[in-house]
Amino acid sequence: MVTPLSGRDALDVPGLERLVEHIIAGGVHGIFVLGSTGEAPSLGHRLQKELVERTSKLVAGRVPLLVGISDTSFTDSVTLAQHAAERGADAVVLAPPYYFPADQPELVEYIGHLVPELPLPLFLYNMPSFTKLSFDPETVVRLAELPGIVGLKDSSGSMTYFHRLQFLLSKERPDFALFVGPEELLGEAVLLGASGGVCGGANLKPQLYVDLYEAAAAGEHDRVAELHERVMQISGNIYQVGRHPSRYLKGLKCALDCLGICSDFMAEPFHKFRAEEREKVIEALGKLGFSLGERA
Amino acid sequence: MVTPLSGRDALDVPGLERLVEHIIAGGVHGIFVLGSTGEAPSLGHRLQKELVERTSKLVAGRVPLLVGISDTSFTDSVTLAQHAAERGADAVVLAPPYYFPADQPELVEYIGHLVPELPLPLFLYNMPSFTKLSFDPETVVRLAELPGIVGLKDSSGSMTYFHRLQFLLSKERPDFALFVGPEELLGEAVLLGASGGVCGGANLKPQLYVDLYEAAAAGEHDRVAELHERVMQISGNIYQVGRHPSRYLKGLKCALDCLGICSDFMAEPFHKFRAEEREKVIEALGKLGFSLGERA
Amino acid sequence: MVTPLSGRDALDVPGLERLVEHIIAGGVHGIFVLGSTGEAPSLGHRLQKELVERTSKLVAGRVPLLVGISDTSFTDSVTLAQHAAERGADAVVLAPPYYFPADQPELVEYIGHLVPELPLPLFLYNMPSFTKLSFDPETVVRLAELPGIVGLKDSSGSMTYFHRLQFLLSKERPDFALFVGPEELLGEAVLLGASGGVCGGANLKPQLYVDLYEAAAAGEHDRVAELHERVMQISGNIYQVGRHPSRYLKGLKCALDCLGICSDFMAEPFHKFRAEEREKVIEALGKLGFSLGERA
Amino acid sequence: MVTPLSGRDALDVPGLERLVEHIIAGGVHGIFVLGSTGEAPSLGHRLQKELVERTSKLVAGRVPLLVGISDTSFTDSVTLAQHAAERGADAVVLAPPYYFPADQPELVEYIGHLVPELPLPLFLYNMPSFTKLSFDPETVVRLAELPGIVGLKDSSGSMTYFHRLQFLLSKERPDFALFVGPEELLGEAVLLGASGGVCGGANLKPQLYVDLYEAAAAGEHDRVAELHERVMQISGNIYQVGRHPSRYLKGLKCALDCLGICSDFMAEPFHKFRAEEREKVIEALGKLGFSLGERA
Repeated sequence: MVTPLSGRDALDVPGLERLVEHIIAGGVHGIFVLGSTGEAPSLGHRLQKELVERTSKLVAGRVPLLVGISDTSFTDSVTLAQHAAERGADAVVLAPPYYFPADQPELVEYIGHLVPELPLPLFLYNMPSFTKLSFDPETVVRLAELPGIVGLKDSSGSMTYFHRLQFLLSKERPDFALFVGPEELLGEAVLLGASGGVCGGANLKPQLYVDLYEAAAAGEHDRVAELHERVMQISGNIYQVGRHPSRYLKGLKCALDCLGICSDFMAEPFHKFRAEEREKVIEALGKLGFSLGERA
Repeated sequence: MVTPLSGRDALDVPGLERLVEHIIAGGVHGIFVLGSTGEAPSLGHRLQKELVERTSKLVAGRVPLLVGISDTSFTDSVTLAQHAAERGADAVVLAPPYYFPADQPELVEYIGHLVPELPLPLFLYNMPSFTKLSFDPETVVRLAELPGIVGLKDSSGSMTYFHRLQFLLSKERPDFALFVGPEELLGEAVLLGASGGVCGGANLKPQLYVDLYEAAAAGEHDRVAELHERVMQISGNIYQVGRHPSRYLKGLKCALDCLGICSDFMAEPFHKFRAEEREKVIEALGKLGFSLGERA
Repeated sequence: MVTPLSGRDALDVPGLERLVEHIIAGGVHGIFVLGSTGEAPSLGHRLQKELVERTSKLVAGRVPLLVGISDTSFTDSVTLAQHAAERGADAVVLAPPYYFPADQPELVEYIGHLVPELPLPLFLYNMPSFTKLSFDPETVVRLAELPGIVGLKDSSGSMTYFHRLQFLLSKERPDFALFVGPEELLGEAVLLGASGGVCGGANLKPQLYVDLYEAAAAGEHDRVAELHERVMQISGNIYQVGRHPSRYLKGLKCALDCLGICSDFMAEPFHKFRAEEREKVIEALGKLGFSLGERA
Repeated sequence: MVTPLSGRDALDVPGLERLVEHIIAGGVHGIFVLGSTGEAPSLGHRLQKELVERTSKLVAGRVPLLVGISDTSFTDSVTLAQHAAERGADAVVLAPPYYFPADQPELVEYIGHLVPELPLPLFLYNMPSFTKLSFDPETVVRLAELPGIVGLKDSSGSMTYFHRLQFLLSKERPDFALFVGPEELLGEAVLLGASGGVCGGANLKPQLYVDLYEAAAAGEHDRVAELHERVMQISGNIYQVGRHPSRYLKGLKCALDCLGICSDFMAEPFHKFRAEEREKVIEALGKLGFSLGERA
C-alpha cells in the first residue's frame, strides 16, 4: 500500500481512508503497509507509527495487516514491531539492513537475534536493488528453520531465484509462503506454485490483481494470459512516465491522485510528478479505461 | 550447445559427433553454437571456425544452425559471420561488445553499422551479467526496425524485462522472435507468449526441454508444472555443485562426460571439475535417473 | 569516532569518556560522531541522541564537534540536527539517503530542501559503496552555491574523483573544505591541497594521523612517506583480520578494546571478533608497538 | 599509446609515425601499445599484429616496447605474445579475461598456465571497471612468486588498493614494478613509491608527464603540485567533453587530430567526436596553450 501524504511529515487522512476502502473493496487478501511502495524508509518514525495505528483501525480486521519494520537499526525495528503488535497487526515484514554491506553469515545471525524479540510472525523481504544484500537461497533455507518466520516476499525480479527457493523449500517447509513482488510476474509465479503476490498496482485496481491471482491459482491459462496483458498495459503506460528509477512510484501515486483516491505528495528524496508528466499519466489512465476522479 | 574440447585448442571430434546426434535425436528445433554455454569467448578464432565447419556438416540441414559471433572487435565478428554463411549456417547471434562500457546510443550505432555487413539474419543476445551492457527495451524497439534483425535471446534472467519487450514489440513486430535463456524460465515464458528457449540443459536431456516447450505452447498448465519441476531438479542438482559462478557450465560439461557423450575439458579461465565435484555430479545423475556411459 | 557500546542499545559510558580524552590528547582538530565508523545507521534514534549529548559534554568545546545526521528520512535527519545544535555541536554531516536509488537532480533537490531546515553548517558525505549514490562533481559544484554547505568528506576512495572536486571548486569556492575519508589516502590528499582527513585510525593512535596531516600540510615529503608507511602498517595488520567487508570496523573496535580504551561490542548486523580473530589483533598490536591495556 | 586508425580495419600509417616520434621526443621511458587507450579489444587480430610490427620498427629499440595481449581466449593471447616477441617487443601486458566472471582461484590458475607459454616478461593489468574482475592484493602476492611476472599496472583508480599492493610486495618483491594508470594519480603515486605511470595524456603532451614523474621521483613537492595542476587542466577540459563514459578516449583522439598528429577515427563501439564536441576540444586546447596543427 502506498502511504498517502499531505506533507513530508503528515498523513493525508481522508485519502488513507478512501485508499483502504478502495483496496478492500477490490477483494485483496491482505494489506502490507510500510514497504518500498509505502516509502517507508523516507518516513519519520513518528509518522510510521501513526500510519500503522490509523490503518489498523480502518482495516478493522477485515483482512490481515502486515507491517514493514525494515530499518538499519535493530532496536528501531523491534520498537516498530512492538507498536504494530499493540495496534493489532498480524505480521511484520523485514528487509536486510541496507547501509552496511553485511555478508550472509552476518545476515543469518542478525535475523537469528531479531526473531526472538518480535511479537508477531515474520516475513522476510528480499529487495537486493535497494538493500544491496540478497537473502541467498541457502540462507533462506537456514532461516526457515527458525520458528516465527512464515514466508518471504521476493522483489528481486529474478524468477530463477524464486524457483530455486521453491525447489529448496518445497520438501522441508511446504507451508512457507513465497510471494512475488513485481506484479508483472504475478501470473507466472502463481501458475508455478507461488503463494501470491504483493502488487503495487493493487492500490490502483485491486480487482485486476485479485482476478489474476485467482485465475493462476486455478490454472486457467488463457485467463491468466489475458489478465497478465492488462497488468502489462498498466505497467507499460503508468510506470514508464518520467526518467528516473523512481518513476514507478511517482506514476502510481500520480494515478491515485488523478483518480481522486489520495494525494500524490511524496516524501524526499522524491517529489510528485510535475504538470508535464501528470498529463501523460492522465492520458494513459483514459486510454486504459479509468474514470478520473474529482481531484484530477 | 557446449563445445566438446580435447584440449584448449582442439575439438573433441568424436564427442562433437555424439553430442550433435544426441541433441537432434531429442527433437530440438535448432542448434546454437558459440554462445556462452559454448565457451565461445574462451576459444581461439581458428577453433571457432573449425567448430562451425564441423557442426554444420554434422547437422547437415536437419535443423537450423545458429552461430554466435559476439566479439569485442567489429571486424572479427563480421569475419566469423561470413565464415558461418559460407559453411551453411542459418543465422548469427550477437551480444554487445563486452570490454568497453558503451552507452545505448553507441550500441544502436554499433548494430546499425554491423547489420549491413552481415550475410545472415541476426538475433540479438542480451546477457548483461557477462557483457555489462543490456539492450534497453527502447533500444530493441529501435533495432527491430532494421531489416535483418529477426529476434532476441534474453539471458538477463529478468522476466520483467522480457515481458516489457513482449509488450513493446507485440504491436510493431509480432514476428520478432523472443527466446528466453535460463531454462528455469522456459515454461512460464512460453506460456505467456515467448517464441521459445535456448536451454543449456538440452545438451543433456533435449527431449525434456522440447516437451516442456510444447506443453507450454499448447497451454497445458499441469504438464508444464510437472516438466518445470524436472528442469528444476536438473538445475538444482547438477548446476549447484562447486563454489564458483562457473559451476553451471562445469556441472553441465561434467555430466555430459559422465554420460559418455563428450569430454568435460574446459578452456581457460575455467577447468573441469575435480574428483570430488565429479562424484557429486555422478550421484545427482543417478538420483535423476540418467544411465552413466562408458566414459564415466 | 567509533561509538563505544555495552549493548545494542546502551553506551559504554566509561569507554566513551576514555575514548574522547584519548583522541583529544592526540591533538585532533575535531571530532566526528555518528559516521560510518560510528555505526550510526545501526544505532537507535534514542541512543544516537544520548551519544551526541554525552560526547558534547565530554568534548566541552575543546575541539569542534561534528555530528552525522544521515538518515533515509528527511524528517529524522532534521530532528537529529536540531538536537545536535541544542547540545552544542558545531556542524552536521550528511550522506545521501541510502534506500531508494535517487538520481542527481533528485539529490540536488533533496539537499536544497534540507539546508534551510538545518540549524548548523553542513558537510556533505560522499560514501557511494554504502549509499549506492555518489555526489557527482557537477552536483557538488551546484550545491556549493547554497549558503550553509561548508565542505565535503569523500570516502569514495577515488583520488581521481577527489582531484576533480578540487579542480572544479578551487576557483569558485576556495574556502570549501575537502576532507578525505580513507586514512591510507591522507598523506597524498593533503600534499595536493586537501583540507584534511577523517581517519578511523585516529581512534587508535590520533597523534600519528595528526603528525601525518601536519607533515603533508607543510610539504615535508620524506616525513609524509615515513608516516604514511606507519598508517599502512596499521591498515595492513589491524584492518585485514577476518573475512567480511566489516573487518575494518571489527578490527578497529577490537584493537580499542585490547588497548583498554573502550568495549568492542558492535550493533547488529555486525558482531565483535571472536577469540581467534582477537588473538590476531593482539599479535598485530604487539608487533606495531602498542601497549595492551588491562581490558585485553 | 592510442592506435591511429584510418578505418575500422586500417592503420593511419603516417599518423602512427608522427605519434611515435612525438612521444619519444617527449622523453618517455617506454611505449605501451594495445592497452585500453589503444582500443585493443575493438581491433581485429590482423590489425593488432600489423600495429605491433609497424610500431616496433618505428621505435627501433629507442625505448622499451610493451604490448597488450589481453584477450578472452588464452590461445589468442599466446599467439599475440609470440608475434610481439618475434617483432622485438620487450614485454607483454595482460588484463584478466573479461567475458566470464572468474573467481580469484581461477584467475591464479589461468595466469599460472599462461606464464610458461609466454616468450616475454609479463606485466599484470588491473582494470576492474572493464574486466569486471580485479586482481585481489593476495592474488598479486601469489602471482609475484612466478618467474616471468615483473610488475602490475593498476587502472582501478583506487589508491587504497595501490598502497595495499605496495605494502604487501615491498618486503617480498621490492623489484616488482607498480605503475598507476590514471594520470590524475601519477604525482602522488610516485611520491609514495610507485615505479611510474602509464598515462594516456602522454600521447598529447609527453613531456608534461615525464616532468611530473621526475619531480615526484625526486620528492620535489612544490613542482609536483604545479605539474599535477596542469595534468588536471588537461583532464578537466579535454576528457570531460561529451556525455558517454567513452569521452576520455574520444577527447584524447580528437585532440591528437586537432594537433595534426594522427586521425581521430575510432573503432566500434565508439565513434569520433562530431563537430559540436570537436569545437569544445579545440577551444580547450587553445586555452591550454597548444598550437593546433594543419589537420585541425
